[in-house]
Amino acid sequence: MKIESVDLFYLRMPEVLDIGDGSQDGLVFRVRSGNFEGWGEAVASPLTSIASWIAPMSHSGCHPVIDSVLGENIDSPADIARIAQKVRSISFYGIIQSDLTFSGVEIALWDLLGRAKGVPIYQLLGYQKSERKTPYASVLFGDTPQATLEKAQLMRNSGFNAIKFGWGPYGRESVAIDREHVIAAREGIGADAHLMIDAGTIFNEDVEAAALRLPALEEAKVKWYEEPVDAAAISLYKQLSLRNSNVRLAGGEGAHNAMQAEALIENGGIGFIQIDTGYIGGIGPAYRVAQFAQARGVQYVNHTFTSQSALSASMQPFAGLKDSWIAEYPMEPKALCQELNLNKISMDADGMISVPESPGLGIDFNLDTVRKYLVDVEIVVNKKVLYQTPTV
Amino acid sequence: MKIESVDLFYLRMPEVLDIGDGSQDGLVFRVRSGNFEGWGEAVASPLTSIASWIAPMSHSGCHPVIDSVLGENIDSPADIARIAQKVRSISFYGIIQSDLTFSGVEIALWDLLGRAKGVPIYQLLGYQKSERKTPYASVLFGDTPQATLEKAQLMRNSGFNAIKFGWGPYGRESVAIDREHVIAAREGIGADAHLMIDAGTIFNEDVEAAALRLPALEEAKVKWYEEPVDAAAISLYKQLSLRNSNVRLAGGEGAHNAMQAEALIENGGIGFIQIDTGYIGGIGPAYRVAQFAQARGVQYVNHTFTSQSALSASMQPFAGLKDSWIAEYPMEPKALCQELNLNKISMDADGMISVPESPGLGIDFNLDTVRKYLVDVEIVVNKKVLYQTPTV
Repeated sequence: MKIESVDLFYLRMPEVLDIGDGSQDGLVFRVRSGNFEGWGEAVASPLTSIASWIAPMSHSGCHPVIDSVLGENIDSPADIARIAQKVRSISFYGIIQSDLTFSGVEIALWDLLGRAKGVPIYQLLGYQKSERKTPYASVLFGDTPQATLEKAQLMRNSGFNAIKFGWGPYGRESVAIDREHVIAAREGIGADAHLMIDAGTIFNEDVEAAALRLPALEEAKVKWYEEPVDAAAISLYKQLSLRNSNVRLAGGEGAHNAMQAEALIENGGIGFIQIDTGYIGGIGPAYRVAQFAQARGVQYVNHTFTSQSALSASMQPFAGLKDSWIAEYPMEPKALCQELNLNKISMDADGMISVPESPGLGIDFNLDTVRKYLVDVEIVVNKKVLYQTPTV
Repeated sequence: MKIESVDLFYLRMPEVLDIGDGSQDGLVFRVRSGNFEGWGEAVASPLTSIASWIAPMSHSGCHPVIDSVLGENIDSPADIARIAQKVRSISFYGIIQSDLTFSGVEIALWDLLGRAKGVPIYQLLGYQKSERKTPYASVLFGDTPQATLEKAQLMRNSGFNAIKFGWGPYGRESVAIDREHVIAAREGIGADAHLMIDAGTIFNEDVEAAALRLPALEEAKVKWYEEPVDAAAISLYKQLSLRNSNVRLAGGEGAHNAMQAEALIENGGIGFIQIDTGYIGGIGPAYRVAQFAQARGVQYVNHTFTSQSALSASMQPFAGLKDSWIAEYPMEPKALCQELNLNKISMDADGMISVPESPGLGIDFNLDTVRKYLVDVEIVVNKKVLYQTPTV
């Protein structure tokens, strides 16, 4: 089969707020080949990624992503790997956004291939069966410790046994107030649930500021301390990992290729590697990192804050790994992401989740939602229209 | 002073070839504040970076770069660092192209500040004086070993005592043919000149293929072996560095922030760190890497393949370092880059070069050239024009 068309749809909420909520817009890809269709999403500034898709070539190492994809054969996972390598060979220098852009294409290719072969993606990856995961709800801290407490209770009552709090006021005020938030979160979810804290890189390169929060995290029996410092600051992760023994570090969502994540595992002293398939280049590189982490005793966790289709795409790479048993579950996405899919990954009676057993991602896209939130974009270069929002 | 305007100009040769020559287009920035003006360039896919400059915000961590720059105060180097940190704080997730885009703005801000204060940038960085550097010509391998030989003779005759060959056929044919090219290069430049080889990441993650070229490089007394593997593959650099003792590895041009370069120095076993100020986020992060490298006995080298203004911007960060004595000098840029500036960095009688002593970059832009190669771009989102090529 040949890749006949790739359509990029930029979706956006009518109002986008300046808050740490990444579900307010989206970039959705539709790939067509023969009678089959696959869908995927990139975690990327939509307009920037659209530009990287069609930008005029600058030189042999700076082609637009489209040059690696359109017209290529797509018959097996090896074809996806080949196309991915082509992107890294001809779209790598000066167009680094291409890593994110291609992530959405790559996921759509896996979806298409799974549907064409009638199997879920995890089986295409070589896993015999999918293991059930403990979902964790990922929510923003409240504005006050009291609001965090109430949010924690609400989350726990909605059935989650693992809850992560992040962003919002954390790291922006005093160590004492941060402690109050963390203690409130623990109190709200109860002593028997898993609690994780996401600092959202707020301390940049200030290891001391990040370390000052450790005692409260230990006190609240926090499972992991996520992105305390800049995502690229591998040596600072290492320094921080040597400060304490009970709170493990987590990071990796900023990895936009497999090698960056592997370097963080090898040199950063982390206990959890968090990968977003919509960021790292898709399902193939994420699977590679999952195997790498497994071999080194580091737990692999998906990073997902948007749709159910993104959740499926992010769970496939570690679906078959028993040791990586916790999965991020987007709990508070905006309407766009809530409405984006026709079906969802639901919790079992005992609060566990699994990837769908139906072909491809096993999650379908709602075309009416795509139409409803579609942004009209036109990019014209020297009077030639290089991109125009396609019809759904 | 307040930053009153930033204009982005996309320049392009009438014909862009699918070859490893990055001087075929350019993205030029003009920053204005009060009575002063500064100019800079980003090494980036121009259309992709323009999109990252004005893209609608996705969330609090995914602002367009413009949000960190326009209206900010610019009175001292500390202001530039503050603006850079703002970019890393609000334009980091899903918009990784912003690292490259901001590079051009940052350079223009140093240029403006230097002109406002009447001093060259290297003095703003804290260097007392600039050290003269040995320029090396950076050229592409010929299509045949004979062509490489002739090119080598030509380069040597034009006054260079250090010449680097790269890209072209290297790594695409056999180990034997690659050897012939390297031996031809050595023969052409003579035994007393410095020879460097740039593999241009051609071996991706294949350490063995990269290692197979080492004997010929030793035979030809090559000073460094540049980017044999994928720029992100730090552990493979390390593996390769343990294979031999005489040929040192070089890399780093793919670093789009200071921490990536530092990780390569710390964990990659390299002997030379090559930084492009138009890529790593500008002159500030490049200076930081230069100090980091100096403290660890690694030689800092600029990476420059375009204009004379880009050369000045890339030389400032290590202008005062005596131990880092070699500098890349773009030898074969396309007309666009040859015509872009009104003055240039020339070789002294003894073949050495220095950064200009005049304020800012010390290199002026030719407005006629900007007009001549200017690309007309329009980006419209929901009927609103977000970018339109500005008047020169």
